[in-house]
Amino acid sequence: MEKTMEKIVALAKARGFVYPGSEIYGGLANTWDYGNLGVELKNNVKKAWWQKFIQENPYNVGVDCAILMNPQTWVASGHLGGFSDPLMDCKECHERFRADKLIEDYHMDKGITMEGSIDSWSNEEMKKYIDEHTIVCPTCGKHNFTDIRQFNLMFKTFQGVTEDAKNVVYLRPETAQGIFVNFKNVQRTSRKKIPFGIGQIGKSFRNEITPGNFTFRTREFEQMELEFFCEPDTDLEWFTYWRQFCIDWLKSLGMKEEEMRVRDHDVAELSFYSKATTDIEFLFPFGWGELWGIADRTDYDLTQHQNVSKEDMSYFDDEKKERYIPYVVEPSLGADRVTLAFLCAAYDEEEIAEGDVRTVLHFHPALAPVKIGVLPLSKKLAEPAEKIYMDLCKLYNCEYDDRGNIGKRYRRQDEIGTPFCITYDFESENDGCVTVRDRDTMEQERIKIEDLKPYFENKLKF
Amino acid sequence: MEKTMEKIVALAKARGFVYPGSEIYGGLANTWDYGNLGVELKNNVKKAWWQKFIQENPYNVGVDCAILMNPQTWVASGHLGGFSDPLMDCKECHERFRADKLIEDYHMDKGITMEGSIDSWSNEEMKKYIDEHTIVCPTCGKHNFTDIRQFNLMFKTFQGVTEDAKNVVYLRPETAQGIFVNFKNVQRTSRKKIPFGIGQIGKSFRNEITPGNFTFRTREFEQMELEFFCEPDTDLEWFTYWRQFCIDWLKSLGMKEEEMRVRDHDVAELSFYSKATTDIEFLFPFGWGELWGIADRTDYDLTQHQNVSKEDMSYFDDEKKERYIPYVVEPSLGADRVTLAFLCAAYDEEEIAEGDVRTVLHFHPALAPVKIGVLPLSKKLAEPAEKIYMDLCKLYNCEYDDRGNIGKRYRRQDEIGTPFCITYDFESENDGCVTVRDRDTMEQERIKIEDLKPYFENKLKF
Repeated sequence: MEKTMEKIVALAKARGFVYPGSEIYGGLANTWDYGNLGVELKNNVKKAWWQKFIQENPYNVGVDCAILMNPQTWVASGHLGGFSDPLMDCKECHERFRADKLIEDYHMDKGITMEGSIDSWSNEEMKKYIDEHTIVCPTCGKHNFTDIRQFNLMFKTFQGVTEDAKNVVYLRPETAQGIFVNFKNVQRTSRKKIPFGIGQIGKSFRNEITPGNFTFRTREFEQMELEFFCEPDTDLEWFTYWRQFCIDWLKSLGMKEEEMRVRDHDVAELSFYSKATTDIEFLFPFGWGELWGIADRTDYDLTQHQNVSKEDMSYFDDEKKERYIPYVVEPSLGADRVTLAFLCAAYDEEEIAEGDVRTVLHFHPALAPVKIGVLPLSKKLAEPAEKIYMDLCKLYNCEYDDRGNIGKRYRRQDEIGTPFCITYDFESENDGCVTVRDRDTMEQERIKIEDLKPYFENKLKF
Repeated sequence: MEKTMEKIVALAKARGFVYPGSEIYGGLANTWDYGNLGVELKNNVKKAWWQKFIQENPYNVGVDCAILMNPQTWVASGHLGGFSDPLMDCKECHERFRADKLIEDYHMDKGITMEGSIDSWSNEEMKKYIDEHTIVCPTCGKHNFTDIRQFNLMFKTFQGVTEDAKNVVYLRPETAQGIFVNFKNVQRTSRKKIPFGIGQIGKSFRNEITPGNFTFRTREFEQMELEFFCEPDTDLEWFTYWRQFCIDWLKSLGMKEEEMRVRDHDVAELSFYSKATTDIEFLFPFGWGELWGIADRTDYDLTQHQNVSKEDMSYFDDEKKERYIPYVVEPSLGADRVTLAFLCAAYDEEEIAEGDVRTVLHFHPALAPVKIGVLPLSKKLAEPAEKIYMDLCKLYNCEYDDRGNIGKRYRRQDEIGTPFCITYDFESENDGCVTVRDRDTMEQERIKIEDLKPYFENKLKF
C-alpha cells in the first residue's frame, strides 16, 4: 500500500475532514476548512493536549489571550525587527520568490549537500550565490533578479477608522507572547510558585509566500504552546523533562517510533538566546516535517519585555529568598500539523480477503471523530437502536446509520476511523445484548446493553 | 448588595478570569485576555454549547472554517457593500464619531423617546437632524461637523507580499458565511437530509469605533453560530423551535427568568430578507444587552452565494422529489458575551453571619472553572489528599490548596465559584471518608473516598 498525500487529501474531502477554503469561489490561496469530521478530530487533538498539559498536570494552568496585541509586544519579541523572509523579484516576469528557497531547490535539483543552514547567510551572500550559479526564475526560466529585500511576515491591519501609522496592529504570529506579557498576572492570580507553566491554544498568522503541503503550512494556523517558567540553572533539566513529555504524549496517542524523529539542534543552529532546542518531526508522505519545537529560551523573552515595557518581570522565590527573572522552556506544537500527522499515521488500506481492500483510519480512540457507530440491522429495529444512540451520545460523539447493508456500513465507519460499532439485531430483543465490533481487529463481541456504558468508559479512557 | 461592573471587573482581574489585553504596554483599546480561570469558564461555555447544539443533537454537525476567506464571500453576503458605520469628523477638534450614536446620546440626555429605529435613517437625514438640533461634539463642545460617510467595519489586511488591491483580504466579521459556502460540502460528507444544521465556534472581527462594557463588545470576539437548513414554509416552525431551544439552554445553565428578556422584532425592524427575528437579552449591571439573535433568514444567504459564485446551492429532496434552496434559521450567540452574562449572573455577596459577608460565584457546575477543591486539613495529610486530587483531576479540573486556615480556603473557592470542596481530615484515615462541602448551601456531607467518583459524576452531570 502506497500512502500518498493525494489519497489522504481525497479522503479528507470526500469524508468531511478538510475541504478547500472558500471553495465555491475558487478557494483562497492555501486556506482550508475543517468539515463535520475534521472539526471533531482537531477538537479531540486539542482536548488531549489540554487534558495532559493543563488539566492533569499539577504545574500548569491555561490562558486565552487576544490575537490583536499592542504593537510594542512585537518590538520586544523581535518580530517587528527580525521576523522576515528574504524576497527577490524576477525582472522579466515580475514573479516574487524567497531567495533561500531558490537556493535550496537548486541544491535539491543538483544533489548538492549543504554545509550548515542557509538561515545564517546574508542577503548579499545569497544574491552572490544565485548570480554565480546563474540560478534561473522557476516561472520564466530567465536569470534576471532584483536585489534581495526582507519582508515582514506579520499580517498588518488597522484598528479604528483611519489607516495611519498610529492605528497599525498586527495579527499575532505566535501565541507565546500573550503568555509572556501576562506572566505576572497569571502568577499572581493562580498563586503558582516557580516552577510552573502557562499553556495556550489559539490561532496565529504568518504571511508566508510559500505555504503548502495541504494543512502542514498555512498562513492561518492554530498553535498549542506551553511556556514553562523555572529557576535559572534548572532550565536544562526541565528542557529534558518536557522534551520527553512531548514524545510520550505523541506515543500515548498511537504515534509510532518509526514515524517520529527527534532532532536536537547543534550549537551552530541554535538561536543566540537558546541553550537547547529539539524538533520532533513526523514522517509525512511528502517527507519529514516538524511538529513540535522544544526550546530552552533562557530568560530572553521576559527580559526583553521588561526592557521594553519597563515593568518588572522578576519573580521572588520565597524559599530561596532570591529575586530572579525565570528561565523558560517552550514546547510549541502546531495543532493543524499534528492533526494532519495523526490523519496520515491513521491511514491504511488493508487487504482483508483476496481482492477485498478496506480503507481504514486507525485513530487512537481519544482522537477518533466518531467514537461509536450505532447500526440497527434493520430499519424495523429503529426504536431500540435509537434509544441506545440517544443514551450514548450524551457521553460521546456517536453516529446513527441505518442506510445500506451492514457490511457497507462497517466499511464506512472504518473509513472515518470509528473504533466501535454497535449492531442491534433481531436477537437483541430476546437476549438484551448487542454486537460490538472492533474497528482494528474486526472481531465482534456480544455485550449486554446495560453494560455498554462501563464497557465504553473502559475502552475510551485516555 | 449592589452588583456593579466595577466589582465584577475587579474580581475578574484579581482572580484570573479576565485581564486587560497587553496590560504591561498600557493595553490595546478594548482588548481582554482570559486568565487561568477565565479560559476554563469560557471553554466550559463553549463545551456546553457544542454538547447540546452539536454532539447530542440528532440534526446538527459542526465545522471549523478559516477566518480568512475569498473576498467574493463578502460581496455575496453584503458585508463589502453594506456593513458600515455612519461616521463624521468634528472640524474643530478632528475627533471622529458615529452619527447615529450622537443622535441616540442626544435623545438619552434630553429624555426624548424615539419612534422606530435610527438604523433606517439615511446619512442625509441624520446630518440634517444634527444640524437642526445643533448637537455638539462630545469632545470639544462645538457644532461643526463634516458630512457623514460610511466606513466599512471589516478589518482589512493583505495576503502575500504586495499591498495592492488583488491581495486584499478581510478578517471575517461573522462565522456564518463559512457555513454557507460549505453547505453543499457538509451536506454531501455528512449525508444529512433536510432539515439539518451546521454549527461553528470561532473568532470574528469587527472594527467598531465604540466597543465597550468590558468584554460585552470587543473588536475581536468569538461566536457560536448555528445555521439550520429547512424546507421552505417550515422555517417559521423551526424558528419557534430554535428560539425555545436557546432559551432552554440558558435556563439549563442556571440563568433566571428575571434576568432574561426575549424581544421579538416588529415588522419595521426586520431585515428585508428576514421573516422573524428575536433577540434574547440579559440584564447586565449596565443594562439590557443582546446575547443571542435568532433569525429566520429565508433563502437569502444561499441564494446570494448561488448568484455570486454561480455554483448550484439547491438541495434535492428525495422524499418530495423536489429541488429547492433551503431556508435558514440562524441562532447566533456571542461566546464572550454569554460568558460575561454567566459571570454577572453568578456574582453574589452574602451576609452569612452578622457582619460576615462572603463573595461567591454561583456558577452552574458545568460552567464552574474548578469543579472540586481538594483541601487537606493539615499539610501533614498531603499524601492521601494529593492522591484524591490526582485521581479526580483525570476527570475534572480540580485545585489542590493547602495554604491558610480551612475557612479562608473555603472562601477562596467560593469566590472563584468552585461548587464542591473536599476536606481530608485527621479522621479520614480511620473512617475512609472525606467531607464534601457544597458551595451554595455550605452544608457538609461525609462521603466514602471510594464513592467520590460516582458522587461527583452524579453531581456534575449536564
